[in-house]
Amino acid sequence: ARFSEMKSGAVGAGLVVLLLLRGECMRGVPRRRRYTPDWESLDSRPLPEWFDKAKFGVFVHWGVFSVPAWGSEWFWWHWKGEGLPQYKQFMSDHYPPGFSYADFGPQFTARFFHPDTWADLFLAAGAKYVVLTTKHHEGFTNWPSSVSWNWNSQDLGPHRDLVGELGNAVRKRNMRYGLYHSLLEWFHPLYLLDKKNGCKTQHFVRAKTMPELYDLVYRYEPDLIWSDGEWECPDTYWNSTEFLSWLYNDSPVKDEVVVNDRWGQNCSCHHGGYYNCQDKFKPESLPGHKWEMCTSIDKVSWGYRRDMAVFDVAAEREIISELVQTVSLGGNYLLNIGPTKDGLIVPIFQERLLAVGKWLSIHGEAVYSSKPWRVQLEKNTTSVWYTSRETTVYAIFLHWPENGVLSLVSPVTTSATQITMLGIQKDLKWSTNPEGGLLIYLPNLPLGTLPVDFGWTIKLTGVK
Amino acid sequence: ARFSEMKSGAVGAGLVVLLLLRGECMRGVPRRRRYTPDWESLDSRPLPEWFDKAKFGVFVHWGVFSVPAWGSEWFWWHWKGEGLPQYKQFMSDHYPPGFSYADFGPQFTARFFHPDTWADLFLAAGAKYVVLTTKHHEGFTNWPSSVSWNWNSQDLGPHRDLVGELGNAVRKRNMRYGLYHSLLEWFHPLYLLDKKNGCKTQHFVRAKTMPELYDLVYRYEPDLIWSDGEWECPDTYWNSTEFLSWLYNDSPVKDEVVVNDRWGQNCSCHHGGYYNCQDKFKPESLPGHKWEMCTSIDKVSWGYRRDMAVFDVAAEREIISELVQTVSLGGNYLLNIGPTKDGLIVPIFQERLLAVGKWLSIHGEAVYSSKPWRVQLEKNTTSVWYTSRETTVYAIFLHWPENGVLSLVSPVTTSATQITMLGIQKDLKWSTNPEGGLLIYLPNLPLGTLPVDFGWTIKLTGVK
Amino acid sequence: ARFSEMKSGAVGAGLVVLLLLRGECMRGVPRRRRYTPDWESLDSRPLPEWFDKAKFGVFVHWGVFSVPAWGSEWFWWHWKGEGLPQYKQFMSDHYPPGFSYADFGPQFTARFFHPDTWADLFLAAGAKYVVLTTKHHEGFTNWPSSVSWNWNSQDLGPHRDLVGELGNAVRKRNMRYGLYHSLLEWFHPLYLLDKKNGCKTQHFVRAKTMPELYDLVYRYEPDLIWSDGEWECPDTYWNSTEFLSWLYNDSPVKDEVVVNDRWGQNCSCHHGGYYNCQDKFKPESLPGHKWEMCTSIDKVSWGYRRDMAVFDVAAEREIISELVQTVSLGGNYLLNIGPTKDGLIVPIFQERLLAVGKWLSIHGEAVYSSKPWRVQLEKNTTSVWYTSRETTVYAIFLHWPENGVLSLVSPVTTSATQITMLGIQKDLKWSTNPEGGLLIYLPNLPLGTLPVDFGWTIKLTGVK
Amino acid sequence: ARFSEMKSGAVGAGLVVLLLLRGECMRGVPRRRRYTPDWESLDSRPLPEWFDKAKFGVFVHWGVFSVPAWGSEWFWWHWKGEGLPQYKQFMSDHYPPGFSYADFGPQFTARFFHPDTWADLFLAAGAKYVVLTTKHHEGFTNWPSSVSWNWNSQDLGPHRDLVGELGNAVRKRNMRYGLYHSLLEWFHPLYLLDKKNGCKTQHFVRAKTMPELYDLVYRYEPDLIWSDGEWECPDTYWNSTEFLSWLYNDSPVKDEVVVNDRWGQNCSCHHGGYYNCQDKFKPESLPGHKWEMCTSIDKVSWGYRRDMAVFDVAAEREIISELVQTVSLGGNYLLNIGPTKDGLIVPIFQERLLAVGKWLSIHGEAVYSSKPWRVQLEKNTTSVWYTSRETTVYAIFLHWPENGVLSLVSPVTTSATQITMLGIQKDLKWSTNPEGGLLIYLPNLPLGTLPVDFGWTIKLTGVK
Repeated sequence: ARFSEMKSGAVGAGLVVLLLLRGECMRGVPRRRRYTPDWESLDSRPLPEWFDKAKFGVFVHWGVFSVPAWGSEWFWWHWKGEGLPQYKQFMSDHYPPGFSYADFGPQFTARFFHPDTWADLFLAAGAKYVVLTTKHHEGFTNWPSSVSWNWNSQDLGPHRDLVGELGNAVRKRNMRYGLYHSLLEWFHPLYLLDKKNGCKTQHFVRAKTMPELYDLVYRYEPDLIWSDGEWECPDTYWNSTEFLSWLYNDSPVKDEVVVNDRWGQNCSCHHGGYYNCQDKFKPESLPGHKWEMCTSIDKVSWGYRRDMAVFDVAAEREIISELVQTVSLGGNYLLNIGPTKDGLIVPIFQERLLAVGKWLSIHGEAVYSSKPWRVQLEKNTTSVWYTSRETTVYAIFLHWPENGVLSLVSPVTTSATQITMLGIQKDLKWSTNPEGGLLIYLPNLPLGTLPVDFGWTIKLTGVK
Repeated sequence: ARFSEMKSGAVGAGLVVLLLLRGECMRGVPRRRRYTPDWESLDSRPLPEWFDKAKFGVFVHWGVFSVPAWGSEWFWWHWKGEGLPQYKQFMSDHYPPGFSYADFGPQFTARFFHPDTWADLFLAAGAKYVVLTTKHHEGFTNWPSSVSWNWNSQDLGPHRDLVGELGNAVRKRNMRYGLYHSLLEWFHPLYLLDKKNGCKTQHFVRAKTMPELYDLVYRYEPDLIWSDGEWECPDTYWNSTEFLSWLYNDSPVKDEVVVNDRWGQNCSCHHGGYYNCQDKFKPESLPGHKWEMCTSIDKVSWGYRRDMAVFDVAAEREIISELVQTVSLGGNYLLNIGPTKDGLIVPIFQERLLAVGKWLSIHGEAVYSSKPWRVQLEKNTTSVWYTSRETTVYAIFLHWPENGVLSLVSPVTTSATQITMLGIQKDLKWSTNPEGGLLIYLPNLPLGTLPVDFGWTIKLTGVK
Repeated sequence: ARFSEMKSGAVGAGLVVLLLLRGECMRGVPRRRRYTPDWESLDSRPLPEWFDKAKFGVFVHWGVFSVPAWGSEWFWWHWKGEGLPQYKQFMSDHYPPGFSYADFGPQFTARFFHPDTWADLFLAAGAKYVVLTTKHHEGFTNWPSSVSWNWNSQDLGPHRDLVGELGNAVRKRNMRYGLYHSLLEWFHPLYLLDKKNGCKTQHFVRAKTMPELYDLVYRYEPDLIWSDGEWECPDTYWNSTEFLSWLYNDSPVKDEVVVNDRWGQNCSCHHGGYYNCQDKFKPESLPGHKWEMCTSIDKVSWGYRRDMAVFDVAAEREIISELVQTVSLGGNYLLNIGPTKDGLIVPIFQERLLAVGKWLSIHGEAVYSSKPWRVQLEKNTTSVWYTSRETTVYAIFLHWPENGVLSLVSPVTTSATQITMLGIQKDLKWSTNPEGGLLIYLPNLPLGTLPVDFGWTIKLTGVK
Repeated sequence: ARFSEMKSGAVGAGLVVLLLLRGECMRGVPRRRRYTPDWESLDSRPLPEWFDKAKFGVFVHWGVFSVPAWGSEWFWWHWKGEGLPQYKQFMSDHYPPGFSYADFGPQFTARFFHPDTWADLFLAAGAKYVVLTTKHHEGFTNWPSSVSWNWNSQDLGPHRDLVGELGNAVRKRNMRYGLYHSLLEWFHPLYLLDKKNGCKTQHFVRAKTMPELYDLVYRYEPDLIWSDGEWECPDTYWNSTEFLSWLYNDSPVKDEVVVNDRWGQNCSCHHGGYYNCQDKFKPESLPGHKWEMCTSIDKVSWGYRRDMAVFDVAAEREIISELVQTVSLGGNYLLNIGPTKDGLIVPIFQERLLAVGKWLSIHGEAVYSSKPWRVQLEKNTTSVWYTSRETTVYAIFLHWPENGVLSLVSPVTTSATQITMLGIQKDLKWSTNPEGGLLIYLPNLPLGTLPVDFGWTIKLTGVK
């Protein structure tokens, strides 16, 4: 309700934003600690708890790039920025001369977009949060931004507020809602002007970025802002610390909002909320800072590609492996799908997401709200990834040991030690291993006993 | 050359504009009189001479409204602003549900637009200046405005700088080039916000109007700015006097530029350069201020309508009559045509324009550079409209007197009086009229002697 | 009524047609003379009277060629048959690679086609008959032909029976209705096969031409069949004499139907009903056989071209001249216009047609139902074309003699001779010319006295 | 090569066809038995061997229905034939009023159709034959039929010979090529006429069906003709026995061609080549006649549907189960996919097909060229399906027995009995079962040992 009501206030909100930009100040009730617009202060803010507990989210890349739906969501850049021959060829093969990227706009129809269907799928996938591209580097906004007139999803194409509609559906199901937002826009003339000026002028930031970020926060009260497109200019250009201090101090989401780390050149992996570092980042060992791995089911693209082959699609086992490793190393796992221009999520993506959901329906106990254990990975008979919840330790193994006996070295057993397997009723037999650690005798598990025949979790209580 | 060179400097110019908007100041060499940003000062500026001499111009309404090409160029407003049933019906009859005005954009192809062909036609029509809609109330810019991204003729549809291309062609033929510019944009969200605020905020003016007006002046160095769309807010909202004082003092066109009178509520017919007053304004007697009558060959619409019937098209005789009356009363005549979305001027418009050109090829002497005479209209045997150039007086009559004798009352003959007819070699016979004035014995003029069989000019020298 | 009722019987009619093609025979009541399927017999049929009386008709070229609307209605042939570079360039400039002619089909919308508006215009033009292209060489049928499935105006594009709708509107206004039909179809595979076989096989004729001609006759009961596209094969290939003998003997229009002369190689100007000979044929002297001159207001094309310039458009005077000459030489005048793909007749065509109508409103007496006089053309002071009705002789002159005196040589005056001018009340003064013939003293006719200031008719009674 | 060369001869072939239809006769060299045009004779023809050996084929439904790609390939019929509300709603929601099915044609672009990519996929799926819809009930032909002008894949849309291109790619890989062909066309006017006449006239058969079937045979020399759309008229209407006797006696494919059983009302399951009976037909016990089960991966539609959800997609296990059962019961299994209008096979279909291919890579020995055994199904510990090759017996079980012991009752062991498992090197332990039959001790098979963890094959030699 809170969310929907805000929408009608959005225009008024826009006004406030613009007044703010011109130096006036909202009066808050600052009984709480206030952050100053510098990284030292901003980095000191504790990350709202919900994020670490959530562990698994779904990422959605959707925009005008879903119309050509070929190559990748960087279509425009590859074609016009880099001038890659295959992109130029694609256009000359299939479109009339002079056809521009903006000409794709009206074909982004979203005609079969049912936000509740999407949200049902994400829920069934076990996601605790959903992050949608509100605006990718192409600059097209998936909501009726007042500073992106006639280049947004209300004015043309879908003629709908995609950001708002998905948000309502996601929240109705008690998932958190995050907004991806690209700071840069490849071809925005004011951005090009600023870049030419070595990021010393801020025409673009004042006309576009700031009004839109404030607008997004006021309209949709996001739980997460997934910033991107920061790499060409420093955070001072982007006004990032000012924005974040407002977000943390005075915004309507100041208590719960989480942000990532892409707020300016050299900022990623160093400042902000949690860290994404680069795309598909996989640390080797336990990072000292909360992080999130984002990756895409289509390994080649984040946006929908018609030319996606099954070989480009991550297998269930790859996805589950990565999820397990990420959580074991303290990360969140944000798994991406790209809907079609029609607003459909193709069956292969549905299948993968549902496979994760089925796996989590058994193994979620070892994932959600877990913490890294003192050891993350052990390679013995087979690789084992640990997680923990309070005194319980979870050992997840991805490949079934040939002889049916799982050897664990790190857990120290006690007299109270009890060992079970998630999804199986009875306790497992085990013994201490003369060579150290313990040996667990796995049950004879016919195929199909568990909904996904991959990745099993040993739950240990009473170990140290 | 000057014109073309400026184009490459346009982005730099844009920067200057934006700096200016933020209060900094260009250093000029102000040896000449400077205007202050108030009407008293601005109204005191003498109108550059070329405009009064030009007398006849062609007006061009072209934009996204040329795509539906139905009803009028106010299509969007009638459909979505007023919700007129016939417009809603038109859309539901011919387009899929949800189709928006912005969706028309890519269909504005201008595929057959040859600016030289247009300019040749305007030249053949006898026009001395051409005024193009750079942006109508729909907000679509016919040039690559950096603050109208993806809603302009470069980014989508034509993929060309229509304003620049026509300007080059027009100037190559020594015609003057004027830019129509609408201050308001019916549906721009920032304008709607300002309107809601009673024109007390200027979000729209700062984000759109001012940057675009400066950009137009720097890029295209117009001879004329034909302002429109002013009526909903006062000139203080529009920043009109600031803009005009810059235009008159410091702009690259400060010496030659002419503007009209639509710069704010209640401004029209009272302030600015020459007066348009309302559309198709026809004064009854000689106005005290230079004025221009704008009208359209299609009496029903300024923009192209596919549904135009021949009955809606002004006849040659009507056009010539109006031109004669306008010039006689000291006005300029700006005759409008609406090209198609393909960039073509349909034959009926060609025919009318060429008819004017043929008429002016004989009678232009009485029109171009003329001044109103001491008498403008005389109704005797037939209506006669007077113009003059220095000591020469021209009497133009539109209907041939039945008996072949033209009676003029106002001219006072002298011994030096000589009377001829434009287009005819020999002197005419005449006599003083006992009842006052003089009687002119018209020649027997077989049909087809003159290129247009309508409107004849008697040239009198040696009269008072 | 008869006409509308037939439509519902069309499918049944189709069946009959096909049975007929297989050699069976309808039983008529042959009290009247029957024609045998050979030219000698067919040529002996008297032409139904209405045709010679009608004198003036409007020709309408409309089809898928109205979609590209560029070059001419032979677009497909120029592009794919001849491969003319400018046509190939046009396609590659404006359409995606591989776009075919058939792909134009759905864009032929006829969305503004109001047959009553057309018919009102043709009536106002003074037309006594209207001929529509039911199928041009492209093969697209403007009616729901059962042997042109999905390549006709009902199945795609307009989704209407254009032939039927226009027919109803035309006949409601008591004009006659003619159907243009192309025997050949440039690219029909069966036609190509037959051509390859030297017109020795008739796959195409059996599958397409014959069923369609019979269908047209049964459905629409045309007053006129304007055959075309005959030139590549002999009449024996086309089954022409069989068809015509059925048409004359047994068809529902056997009494009133008129056909032209394009029924096979070397047939034109020699056999059939009236003669068209070649397009725009103008005989030098009075032909011995009833004929019709067909020509087009757009001198360059019969179908609508967006790129038509006013210079390509026949002037009012040219059209009236041609009409007068044609009628004087015993011909009918069939004047063509090409509507747009939207179903509109552009204003320049309206203007021309209405000019003819205005002229005929005065001078029609000398045209409709007239017969050639014993002399057709006389060149004295000015060219004079004669027509006659019973004992009345009409002398039409196109240029006003400089001295206002018209000299006629051929009419032999009597004591009963009376001379008037059409459109003028009073008798004219005249005298016998000592050098032969008579001198007519034309009235002083101020411009605008008659609705069209071109072409005047002297009516002489009591002359020989 | 033979195949490609024929293409250039196709037009000539068409001629022959048409001559044939008119009663002339080709002279063959009839040293072999000839079939007469009646079922008794035709049904006596032995089925060419390749078909029974092939066992597994891929079916491809592709056509204009792939453009709306919604509901099913019966889109047109549901919309216009039955007038189902949801189809009417779909059209009114997404298309302009009056949009027809034929208007979809140009949007069937096949722009990413690479026949070699398809054929590689089918080969990897283990298919021995591929059957493509050359023409579904919509009547659109996927090859340049000379009697379906402008309603075929060469004249509009793809502008390619889809049937020919896929055929070349399939045969290059030594797969057999079958052509699906619908006898009826829902909305063909001549078919509607014949239906109205109670299938007593054959306008449609003569104009369309027969020429196209002959054309298909001459052009593409199919290994299989998969007839459909027969149910509304008897075989005498369809000329089926005449066609088949020509096909078996004189056609270029007389030796190898296989046909199914849909050649007229009440024909299916009774006459023709092999039997399909109804779609997705599953017999309970071993049929007496060679049969084929056709089914679709998308359980809801044969043609591509954008709205397909993963729940509608047959799982790998379902497909493999069905394949096993079908082969065990002597059938062939024809598994369908529907490509997109762009010519792509979506990843979920790729995944399923590849899963079958992986399974067959191990178990194909028990499938290809197999014969039904004396027992087909045995239900003991788990269901077991038998097949055989000469003296070898294959027992395929789909669910792993809980205790790892498989009990078989039917095979009678001998001293020479040897038992192995496909995909596993070593012999299996087994013992005779006191209660009859034998007990096989299955190996401990870790997940992932075989490429598909479902469906295992026991190979028995030396059993009776």
